[in-house]
Amino acid sequence: MYEILDSTVLCHIGYVESGQPFVLPYGYTRDGDSILIHGSTGARFMRAMAAGAPVCVTVTKLDGMVLARSTFDSSMNYRSVVILGVAEEVTGEAQAAALDTISNGFVPGRVAEVRSSTKKEWAATMVLRLSLAEASVKVRAHGADTDTTGYAEGEGEQVWAGVIPLMTVAGEPQPADEASANLPLPASVVRYLNNPKA
Amino acid sequence: MYEILDSTVLCHIGYVESGQPFVLPYGYTRDGDSILIHGSTGARFMRAMAAGAPVCVTVTKLDGMVLARSTFDSSMNYRSVVILGVAEEVTGEAQAAALDTISNGFVPGRVAEVRSSTKKEWAATMVLRLSLAEASVKVRAHGADTDTTGYAEGEGEQVWAGVIPLMTVAGEPQPADEASANLPLPASVVRYLNNPKA
Repeated sequence: MYEILDSTVLCHIGYVESGQPFVLPYGYTRDGDSILIHGSTGARFMRAMAAGAPVCVTVTKLDGMVLARSTFDSSMNYRSVVILGVAEEVTGEAQAAALDTISNGFVPGRVAEVRSSTKKEWAATMVLRLSLAEASVKVRAHGADTDTTGYAEGEGEQVWAGVIPLMTVAGEPQPADEASANLPLPASVVRYLNNPKA
Repeated sequence: MYEILDSTVLCHIGYVESGQPFVLPYGYTRDGDSILIHGSTGARFMRAMAAGAPVCVTVTKLDGMVLARSTFDSSMNYRSVVILGVAEEVTGEAQAAALDTISNGFVPGRVAEVRSSTKKEWAATMVLRLSLAEASVKVRAHGADTDTTGYAEGEGEQVWAGVIPLMTVAGEPQPADEASANLPLPASVVRYLNNPKA
């Protein structure tokens, strides 16, 4: 579970409002046996979670298209974690540390390269912690079914079956301004390019 | 919206059971102004949706890590579609056509390369259609903030800011058996490799 959670930064958070489910994409970082999520204190979604709404946070990595000799047996390779629970707001001094953990979770080492956050920035940000106590993992990570049922003898073997692996890669960094273009890439970015977490 | 929905195969579906939200990963294919989802007729999730449970289907493409000169101004580039509604089961003759649409949505052209599905396979599969009538798009697709607030004069410009683009690529296809290894790659796979939809 930790391996899946540490391989990406994107989760989908579900919560309920007047019986209607909502699912929104958020960044997250695993911190020990919980995950941390941050957002604007003004976001209704964040406030509902902080107020104790039951949530479901799902993380999915799509790893490949699995082509069998029938569409019925075809599938996808993936790894997913589904977390149920109620989030808790992280406040006080723990909040600043949690925000650094989140930012370093997105791009490891980035926090040390930029200025510290300000009190005003902390005040505008809400941090939530959700325990991994009630979480489940589902993985499909094997080859395509080779069954030839439904074909005339010898014909099924003429149909290619296999897996197309999928992976996320990082492209060339795009500097935001001339000052950045004239600087060497920071260590965090160089490291990220070799091991993108997305 | 169509461009986002046609660029990937993975959605996250949220539904509610006894007040608890659940978010599960599913494959989907856009078909005109709706999306199609399929799953086992035995899946509780599918049956709840077919029975009229309100759902939220969210599709998110993570396009880049956005590094500003503060963690507060840092962000991610992404495109997302959030669809609300009630799904309808696709039955009868329309079901077979919908299943082909779904399979060709995953790997375009694949349906013509394999045998037709059987009545037994159709009977084991449930197809749901969800209208795009109540859907919203959210996109962040621009560069990093270049603000240097909070730094001493001239110091902020010494901090690299920019975007690390992220994309999904396909790796080398892995044949499922010797028969497949001895065949040329089918047209659907060759096409997919040049334009992975994931």
